[in-house]
Amino acid sequence: MDPKEPIGSIPLFRELPDRQRRALASLVVDKPYKRGETVFSEGDEGSGFYVIISGRVKIFKFSPDGKEQILHIFGPGDPIGEAAMFAGKPFPANAAALEESRLFFFSRIEFMRLIKQDPTLAMNMLAVLSQRLQRFAALIEDLSLKEVPGRLAAYLLYLSAQRPAKETLQFDISMKQLSSLLGTIPETLSRIVTRMNKAGLIRSEGFRRIRIMDPASLKELASGKRRLD
Amino acid sequence: MDPKEPIGSIPLFRELPDRQRRALASLVVDKPYKRGETVFSEGDEGSGFYVIISGRVKIFKFSPDGKEQILHIFGPGDPIGEAAMFAGKPFPANAAALEESRLFFFSRIEFMRLIKQDPTLAMNMLAVLSQRLQRFAALIEDLSLKEVPGRLAAYLLYLSAQRPAKETLQFDISMKQLSSLLGTIPETLSRIVTRMNKAGLIRSEGFRRIRIMDPASLKELASGKRRLD
Repeated sequence: MDPKEPIGSIPLFRELPDRQRRALASLVVDKPYKRGETVFSEGDEGSGFYVIISGRVKIFKFSPDGKEQILHIFGPGDPIGEAAMFAGKPFPANAAALEESRLFFFSRIEFMRLIKQDPTLAMNMLAVLSQRLQRFAALIEDLSLKEVPGRLAAYLLYLSAQRPAKETLQFDISMKQLSSLLGTIPETLSRIVTRMNKAGLIRSEGFRRIRIMDPASLKELASGKRRLD
Repeated sequence: MDPKEPIGSIPLFRELPDRQRRALASLVVDKPYKRGETVFSEGDEGSGFYVIISGRVKIFKFSPDGKEQILHIFGPGDPIGEAAMFAGKPFPANAAALEESRLFFFSRIEFMRLIKQDPTLAMNMLAVLSQRLQRFAALIEDLSLKEVPGRLAAYLLYLSAQRPAKETLQFDISMKQLSSLLGTIPETLSRIVTRMNKAGLIRSEGFRRIRIMDPASLKELASGKRRLD
């Protein structure tokens, strides 16, 4: 089968011009896998990356007692091992076919040679990934705005309960850690803080310092009785 | 001020080795903006991209009646215009400083020259973006698993109400469109469909065909009385 056709269905490459798809197709090593067959093992050098054309692949680690823990199951169109390969790092987990599967392998060395020849290939792939990131970030914001303000309110009230009244809260953790604790990303957390400021619930006093202005409304927010506009 | 220091605080560049950060710092055009000053306008050629070092920048469009519609407000560390620039496309919206701001500008031509010299720079940036995408996708899955199964159940029941009982539902829209309609991404939607199959609620019959097996449980899922395991 001509590898050019499936290349067009791979999200990472879909937006690329024909010329670059053809160049990528020329690198493809078309690999069949049997059910259960290993694709790569944790610690293997990231000598390239794979894209699933058909079938399913599980990504897993072994727990200290040797039990298999599945982290992800990927299917057609999904790239695997690409983050490790781009970074030139060893694979951080194991991958094995869950059923009869067909994967395209792209070698790191060949891929870098292609980018050196034609830097716009890298630019176009960076464009695809940044556009996806923007869409994902917008979706996370939509999804977070329902629950995260309440969780942040509960967290602020918890912190303030441990301190003398009216004192400014000083955060010992970064926005990144706090956002991860609350189940969102720093970009969205920062917008929620801005909204809470506007609503008069809190007052941000510089980096990592927040003063609670309206504890009653924060309590309503934390209990779900009130929503943040 | 030496541009090397802020370069290390830009998420897009943070993971890069020192040598590549220094190379990027050598490209920086350090630009001050006054409150309200235009950074770029919709339709301008994406001749480069910007990273906010201090201040805030609004991204906005004009509605047909000339009203300004703000799409995003970005702050320190955020890149702007990078997706258009990577793709070599014109900027899709306007950008203006909301307050006194300092931006670093990176020219597309210089950036491509750098990638040609050192393709591992592009590889490392692709690695940063893919890792972020993986984290974002995992978070979207966490956030979606609460509400999206119920929304999908409601959608399936709505479709089946328009057809003779027990008939297989045929989707006229792609997984991508359906996931966007339900507020998630295709990867997560596909996992939710798999879980519904396992729970005996539906049976997927190939691409875009689903048969409803247990309408009563789907109704409970849609009304929030039941959760998908």
